[in-house]
Amino acid sequence: MDVFIEPIGRLINEFSKLPGVGKKTAQRYAYKIVSMSEGEARAFAEAILDAKRKVRFCKICGNFSEEEVCGICRARTPEQICVVKEPKDVIALEKLHEYRGVYHVLHGVISPMNGVGPDDIRIKELLARLNEGVQEVILATNPDVEGEATALYIAKLIKPLGVKVTRIAHGIPIGSELEYTDEVTLARALSDRKEL
Amino acid sequence: MDVFIEPIGRLINEFSKLPGVGKKTAQRYAYKIVSMSEGEARAFAEAILDAKRKVRFCKICGNFSEEEVCGICRARTPEQICVVKEPKDVIALEKLHEYRGVYHVLHGVISPMNGVGPDDIRIKELLARLNEGVQEVILATNPDVEGEATALYIAKLIKPLGVKVTRIAHGIPIGSELEYTDEVTLARALSDRKEL
Repeated sequence: MDVFIEPIGRLINEFSKLPGVGKKTAQRYAYKIVSMSEGEARAFAEAILDAKRKVRFCKICGNFSEEEVCGICRARTPEQICVVKEPKDVIALEKLHEYRGVYHVLHGVISPMNGVGPDDIRIKELLARLNEGVQEVILATNPDVEGEATALYIAKLIKPLGVKVTRIAHGIPIGSELEYTDEVTLARALSDRKEL
Repeated sequence: MDVFIEPIGRLINEFSKLPGVGKKTAQRYAYKIVSMSEGEARAFAEAILDAKRKVRFCKICGNFSEEEVCGICRARTPEQICVVKEPKDVIALEKLHEYRGVYHVLHGVISPMNGVGPDDIRIKELLARLNEGVQEVILATNPDVEGEATALYIAKLIKPLGVKVTRIAHGIPIGSELEYTDEVTLARALSDRKEL
């Protein structure tokens, strides 16, 4: 790509590392940076460095945090623990403003295909938290094969300890139509039907 | 957006300033940055700062350049000058490896609607270059209303000086079909037909 002068070529290369960004999009982003004011570009670069420098993981729940213990763990009592795969799942759930319990981020799911076993994700850390008056563990891993397997694995470990274990519901998304729902989801919606 | 801790929220905000990037996409980019190594994030931030610091405009043609005069102006003789709207148009043309002349970047087009007159873009600078043994000026502004108007305006100024002025061809894109070509383009393709 020698049609680009070096600093622009390098910036295009960096933008190409972002998820879903190809050469064309990276070029548009790079042009935008070049057209910014000096101050705007500096603020952008600083935000990247700060996000990397200041963001760490809460030592209790594993969520993104600026402190050793995150704001959620500090503010709420751990009667309910919601188990998720990644920190971004916490954000998705927090946006609902529905759930008032704490979280536990596994930082992965069990995936033998990818060489990820139960000891490679934060399951031990979850079990260690169950002495604190926890009344319910909500398993909110994704409804895919690995997420399901991980949820079942964790449920098996926790049930003998006398803690209630629940799994988020699967079924037809609100607003969609029966006709267009895939078969697996539809079958699940049928078998998980509830009495009204 | 108080579900995000401050450094992540700020980074999402910065990414949202890029063209075509909404909140969701900005989030994905921000997560990617957080998951990078310290060194990768620093390289990214440095590339942004460098692009802003090192990239300026060639004092002759107005293209992106690291030096006072760009590589193209230094390497080629100005027998043909290709006039374009923006530096990125130079890159699009250079990628063809077809054109061996120099460029002139207008940094805009005449647009009365947006308060951009002939004196607001680099037309004077173009005229000043026409003493150097220039044989042809190729007008390669975009085929939209403003690009056409700008091309016609420049052609009118240059023709009396005895320099050949040409306009890039408009017509049906190669590989597309008559049936799906818009009417304006089709009419233009018909009126601009050439003898074989």
